[in-house]
Amino acid sequence: MVLKDGSSTLSTSFMGSCKSYSQADVIIVGVPMDYTASFKPGARFGPRKIREVSAGIEEYSFYQNISLEGQKYFDCGDLDLPFDVEKSLLLISKAAEEIFNDEKFPLFIGGEHLISTPVIQKAYEKYGDELILLHFDAHADLREDYLGCQSSHACAIRRVAELIPGKNIYQFGIRSGTKEEYSYGFTNTNFYMFDVAKPLMEVIEKLKNKPVYVTLDIDVVDPAFANGTGTPEPGGITSSEMIKAILMLKNLDMVGFDIVEVAPPYDISDRTSLLAAKIIREIILIANTKYLAER
Amino acid sequence: MVLKDGSSTLSTSFMGSCKSYSQADVIIVGVPMDYTASFKPGARFGPRKIREVSAGIEEYSFYQNISLEGQKYFDCGDLDLPFDVEKSLLLISKAAEEIFNDEKFPLFIGGEHLISTPVIQKAYEKYGDELILLHFDAHADLREDYLGCQSSHACAIRRVAELIPGKNIYQFGIRSGTKEEYSYGFTNTNFYMFDVAKPLMEVIEKLKNKPVYVTLDIDVVDPAFANGTGTPEPGGITSSEMIKAILMLKNLDMVGFDIVEVAPPYDISDRTSLLAAKIIREIILIANTKYLAER
Amino acid sequence: MVLKDGSSTLSTSFMGSCKSYSQADVIIVGVPMDYTASFKPGARFGPRKIREVSAGIEEYSFYQNISLEGQKYFDCGDLDLPFDVEKSLLLISKAAEEIFNDEKFPLFIGGEHLISTPVIQKAYEKYGDELILLHFDAHADLREDYLGCQSSHACAIRRVAELIPGKNIYQFGIRSGTKEEYSYGFTNTNFYMFDVAKPLMEVIEKLKNKPVYVTLDIDVVDPAFANGTGTPEPGGITSSEMIKAILMLKNLDMVGFDIVEVAPPYDISDRTSLLAAKIIREIILIANTKYLAER
Amino acid sequence: MVLKDGSSTLSTSFMGSCKSYSQADVIIVGVPMDYTASFKPGARFGPRKIREVSAGIEEYSFYQNISLEGQKYFDCGDLDLPFDVEKSLLLISKAAEEIFNDEKFPLFIGGEHLISTPVIQKAYEKYGDELILLHFDAHADLREDYLGCQSSHACAIRRVAELIPGKNIYQFGIRSGTKEEYSYGFTNTNFYMFDVAKPLMEVIEKLKNKPVYVTLDIDVVDPAFANGTGTPEPGGITSSEMIKAILMLKNLDMVGFDIVEVAPPYDISDRTSLLAAKIIREIILIANTKYLAER
Amino acid sequence: MVLKDGSSTLSTSFMGSCKSYSQADVIIVGVPMDYTASFKPGARFGPRKIREVSAGIEEYSFYQNISLEGQKYFDCGDLDLPFDVEKSLLLISKAAEEIFNDEKFPLFIGGEHLISTPVIQKAYEKYGDELILLHFDAHADLREDYLGCQSSHACAIRRVAELIPGKNIYQFGIRSGTKEEYSYGFTNTNFYMFDVAKPLMEVIEKLKNKPVYVTLDIDVVDPAFANGTGTPEPGGITSSEMIKAILMLKNLDMVGFDIVEVAPPYDISDRTSLLAAKIIREIILIANTKYLAER
Amino acid sequence: MVLKDGSSTLSTSFMGSCKSYSQADVIIVGVPMDYTASFKPGARFGPRKIREVSAGIEEYSFYQNISLEGQKYFDCGDLDLPFDVEKSLLLISKAAEEIFNDEKFPLFIGGEHLISTPVIQKAYEKYGDELILLHFDAHADLREDYLGCQSSHACAIRRVAELIPGKNIYQFGIRSGTKEEYSYGFTNTNFYMFDVAKPLMEVIEKLKNKPVYVTLDIDVVDPAFANGTGTPEPGGITSSEMIKAILMLKNLDMVGFDIVEVAPPYDISDRTSLLAAKIIREIILIANTKYLAER
Repeated sequence: MVLKDGSSTLSTSFMGSCKSYSQADVIIVGVPMDYTASFKPGARFGPRKIREVSAGIEEYSFYQNISLEGQKYFDCGDLDLPFDVEKSLLLISKAAEEIFNDEKFPLFIGGEHLISTPVIQKAYEKYGDELILLHFDAHADLREDYLGCQSSHACAIRRVAELIPGKNIYQFGIRSGTKEEYSYGFTNTNFYMFDVAKPLMEVIEKLKNKPVYVTLDIDVVDPAFANGTGTPEPGGITSSEMIKAILMLKNLDMVGFDIVEVAPPYDISDRTSLLAAKIIREIILIANTKYLAER
Repeated sequence: MVLKDGSSTLSTSFMGSCKSYSQADVIIVGVPMDYTASFKPGARFGPRKIREVSAGIEEYSFYQNISLEGQKYFDCGDLDLPFDVEKSLLLISKAAEEIFNDEKFPLFIGGEHLISTPVIQKAYEKYGDELILLHFDAHADLREDYLGCQSSHACAIRRVAELIPGKNIYQFGIRSGTKEEYSYGFTNTNFYMFDVAKPLMEVIEKLKNKPVYVTLDIDVVDPAFANGTGTPEPGGITSSEMIKAILMLKNLDMVGFDIVEVAPPYDISDRTSLLAAKIIREIILIANTKYLAER
Repeated sequence: MVLKDGSSTLSTSFMGSCKSYSQADVIIVGVPMDYTASFKPGARFGPRKIREVSAGIEEYSFYQNISLEGQKYFDCGDLDLPFDVEKSLLLISKAAEEIFNDEKFPLFIGGEHLISTPVIQKAYEKYGDELILLHFDAHADLREDYLGCQSSHACAIRRVAELIPGKNIYQFGIRSGTKEEYSYGFTNTNFYMFDVAKPLMEVIEKLKNKPVYVTLDIDVVDPAFANGTGTPEPGGITSSEMIKAILMLKNLDMVGFDIVEVAPPYDISDRTSLLAAKIIREIILIANTKYLAER
Repeated sequence: MVLKDGSSTLSTSFMGSCKSYSQADVIIVGVPMDYTASFKPGARFGPRKIREVSAGIEEYSFYQNISLEGQKYFDCGDLDLPFDVEKSLLLISKAAEEIFNDEKFPLFIGGEHLISTPVIQKAYEKYGDELILLHFDAHADLREDYLGCQSSHACAIRRVAELIPGKNIYQFGIRSGTKEEYSYGFTNTNFYMFDVAKPLMEVIEKLKNKPVYVTLDIDVVDPAFANGTGTPEPGGITSSEMIKAILMLKNLDMVGFDIVEVAPPYDISDRTSLLAAKIIREIILIANTKYLAER
Repeated sequence: MVLKDGSSTLSTSFMGSCKSYSQADVIIVGVPMDYTASFKPGARFGPRKIREVSAGIEEYSFYQNISLEGQKYFDCGDLDLPFDVEKSLLLISKAAEEIFNDEKFPLFIGGEHLISTPVIQKAYEKYGDELILLHFDAHADLREDYLGCQSSHACAIRRVAELIPGKNIYQFGIRSGTKEEYSYGFTNTNFYMFDVAKPLMEVIEKLKNKPVYVTLDIDVVDPAFANGTGTPEPGGITSSEMIKAILMLKNLDMVGFDIVEVAPPYDISDRTSLLAAKIIREIILIANTKYLAER
Repeated sequence: MVLKDGSSTLSTSFMGSCKSYSQADVIIVGVPMDYTASFKPGARFGPRKIREVSAGIEEYSFYQNISLEGQKYFDCGDLDLPFDVEKSLLLISKAAEEIFNDEKFPLFIGGEHLISTPVIQKAYEKYGDELILLHFDAHADLREDYLGCQSSHACAIRRVAELIPGKNIYQFGIRSGTKEEYSYGFTNTNFYMFDVAKPLMEVIEKLKNKPVYVTLDIDVVDPAFANGTGTPEPGGITSSEMIKAILMLKNLDMVGFDIVEVAPPYDISDRTSLLAAKIIREIILIANTKYLAER
């Protein structure tokens, strides 16, 4: 019996996903939205491609010496979004709320960076002024508005900074922005230009035991390593440095994570999606370890 | 003097454009909007690429035996759009109004098909129930809404059909849609499936001497000839048949034209943009002939 | 409730697939095998890409004026193949046997053409010398062996012709092969070069009321329309002609179908996969009509 | 013995080439020159790619029912050109002279169209005012000069027309040029716009028994079928129509042939190079038949 | 008023360019020439693409903490070149002369490396034996001739070295050349292999207060970071190292700059053009600072 | 005489190859096999592309200050393989045996990693337990089987490790595998994760004067630098680090070398093939130096 006994499969979940939401501690949600992309759209195809290429890497991590096998995570698939920014943000917000309410760990895959804003808002609703935000990005994303629009990927962190205390926000790897963003960042947030692993190492001790949300725009990595993205910015970190920074998160009480701006159409080799898949694998392993410890 | 005497140039207008709006009868406006693209975005890059490749074809038309040289058309460049559908539609609407008010011929380059709606509305404001709409497309674009949204490229002609008398609308080459669109089309508009040149030939006589607006979705052409588009639909007409249909428009009183859904990222050979550039050349020649005749 | 109530989805089945094998009359099986590809591999990615792009076409067919909605077909996903030709052929054979035994209609998506051989063998086991084989292809696939290997895509129909009476085999659109294949074809099968719709029309009457299996190599279509394939052969038919031939099958008692050799890596516009998806939609509609009639 | 007995090979000649120049009647010469390309360079890679993909088609022709096997043709490889237009033209000229002097049939593969000029000049030196030139192209190539330069691909046929009597020149499929070229063509040559096979059929009878040289710019074929070319011009013929016209040449006394402007970088599917390889196969078969007859 | 009041734009100048030559201190000139490209042509599309993608980066520099806004630079557009090497070099020479005569700072964008030669010659005419040349490149470009031709991109610096005292020439990052170039470099110029920032740092002190012209071949950067170039040479520096070296130029009296060999067709992600645009932004800021200081 | 005196050439050997096998000390053999590729096929095109792009680099090495000119190496071309894994492995085995028997240095170009297994087996037959294997790779390739198949690229080194003493195997740069491979590696071989040059430096002294075979999977290099490969694994070394490690081999008694898994279809810039060509150039120079010393 080839067909009926299930030996044939059509898995397009992230590799090794559990069978149901209720079994899992880590919840993966794809958000195929790129409507406010200002330069090159295509991040809508990110979640699907990242899942697809996850079949090309191993479940086992040489970095952490553990495997995804047996880990409790569930891939919900993609949110079914209307072609409307505000309505879409509302749906993302509800999904995030549901996950936080169920005491699970949200792992969102963008889409554009704007999708992070409602998730972080929900994290803030839950954890309040204790919440720490780590932001890895080439761009400051601190604009007041972009061409008159406040709901734009270019304003994603500014919207958050109007809510969360600025001193709770740590920005790493930033190498592009307007004069206003530059000033705003240095005045209001913890603003680290160009580097990632080194400044993170320096502050990691004082972040311990606080709830930490991490938002990672793949373009913090140099476009040589992460070419599949909408606004590539030369002069970034290597993929090895990115992985190194990710592994430091093991020391923190991470409560949520998103990875955004992977735009597959500009990457024939799929290496950007593969890097994202590896990062997600490491994050699942880190997050699950925490849940395991708590049991 | 190489630089000061203007022998060096940076022309990225459509080839041979006049120097000013006021000199011209035909006004080219690019609309780099693809926010409601449901399948593959990229039509925002259409206007720029079409102008760029226009340098690769001749100003002279073997089809009409005249040249663009000396023709009175002006390329305004691209509208500067915010990343907001409704605000963008308003800007398009104002641009169209301005051109119609100035008794000029609007030639819009999309962008997605939704950009045609406000232009046709302005044509209708000017010409009233006399206005004939010719619609070349693979898709009926007659949906009531798309995922709850009424401002979508998939509803572009439905929005128009709620305004203009259905009997004034002629749809050619349609080969895709929902059951509802199929029924709506057969009930409300003049609905010709699959073919273009043949049914157009049959009705052209009775369209004479009426104001005719033409909206052309490049995907009416088979994706073999027009691969650079967001929702390619196999089984369409050839580029030669498309050009043949365009040349028939010489017999009509065309008052406006748009060409939409050219999405360059999916076309390495640029042949889709080149086909659009050739069509635009022929349309300018046809439209200018009319203005010439009127003088 | 966004996540738990199922409003978020991760469908990567062919659009609109039923929920289970038992509910369905038409069974879709993907076969991601391209191990014997002699020129350019990549057909292994065909089934996945065809499903993915099926989201870009409508469920409703303008050709037949019916919709997939409510049709009884099930997408089993891809067979889980080892990297071994003979073992893979055995798995395909078992899947085909299972479907035929359950009185369902097999619809296989390749992969390379060799995957058709075991399916046709099972059809022959069921229908015996009554079975008619329609073969649409640019290549005769009648080689005795290819570089000493008898299990090769280049021998797919020869293997069949050693089993089924040659007069029951109809080959259409063939335009490439060796001298030996040319001779073999003219001597042993019904061999129609270059054209498809016209010769099919001529013989269709006498094929009525016989069990007919159809195997379609996408390269029968000219590479302008079907560029995503491993051994493109210029000088073929158009996509419109292909669809026309497919629609003629409504008049026959089709008992099985496969479409092979779609190789997405060579098709940035996805038009080859989209053409395959449209053909599959039409085949499902035709096959289901028959089952409906029989109830 | 795997290596020493020659069972391992590194053939990159056109498939099935003889071992030496002296054995052969048809001489293939590649000319990797695209220095005067005005739009998109890349034709320099044409000869190499055409040879490479020739491995993907059969030696046997279904059109003529003969095989390349045993045919007497030799692939000399590519001329070793300096990056200098005039010096390169001189080398081409010498190669052509050598072939004509040896009473062989030259088959040049471009490269840009300018490479045809010295070959045709040598044909004219040999055959004089009897020589007929058949020119298949989308572009008239009749410019007096291009940006002040007389040695340009855009002037290739004009240079010839200043030498050979205009009434001996037949141009087919032309659909692009300046007003001056249009006038020049209609005044001086036999100028057939848009179509190829039909007008060729009409004149073929009166060309019989005259020495005929054929120059084929691949862009005469529509860019849907021949996308890999430097100045694609939508609205052309199909690949089937091209092959049909090629087969008509069997009725003529062809004395030389070139195929130019295949630019592989714009064709991921290789179908343009494959079409060129098929055309070359048919030309070799036609040319060799003549030599055979003469023996 | 949407169209007449100029709110619609068609800017394809480098972002933020002044309105006129006379207002500006820094003059940008594009040189779309790649006629002597020996491996892969395409650098002719460099200037246009670099301007296009400049819209994707910020005017503000995080590296220097200043913005292009208000800076006095003018983008002249591309030189209108004939397809003739020597005539083109003459036009470049005249443009350079004009800019130097007007006491402005020339910033040329190639195009192939040969375009630098006439500009450097004009710099030498103005500054004489004081002139220092900094050359960043993977290739020595010190050949006496290339295939017999002395005007070749492979000889660009050799031509200069026959004019300027060799001890005034500093070559950085060189990792490819012939034995003769290797010897010539070590004997005649200051020749630093593989590294850029480190050796530049070592010599920068002694270059102060001398007129310095900088020529940058983008292939000095590793093809991982600068894949869009005609002769990529693995084993180069990172984009971060390149930017670091550029910023060192602030300490020098830079009198002219060119960046060459960006070939967009080989870079789907545009990161090579984006890196060039960032470098140009930094150079404008450095050069303008000097002019500001002098006022 | 252009053609007869050989001034025209069709060289597609690796640049500068000798004319015959017998003259040479180093023997290059291409193995165009990718049948067991589990993720993305295409390595079959590696040998051809590497030879093609070798024309784009210099014969002279700046790293070693010697040139290929006069070196004794011969490019045999590609093995003519059937589409059958076991038969192909046998042919590779015979070729390797022949080269070892003739006391020459085998330099195999893959193709997938499985092709290395028979070559290493033949090296072991010749050198016995003295043989040292250096393995550069992102993947451990130590699986017992892959989907039930023991002849798979994923098992290439495991097959070897069942033959050669594990302590003779040194694996560098490994960053991916299953838990079992991880354990197997640490238990049985010398297993160095992530880094290459540093651990190689540490062990190089004790490898001196032993026969050393080197197998290099290009994916040990980060996909930013080596994007053209079938299973890219982010987080690898740079191309400069790779070259540095290659140069260390000068200190060893290298007796054979292979480079595998270059898959050109995923690399538009050809930089992966160029890196492979540079590595091959350095290996030829290192190997020939040894032969020279021995004479």
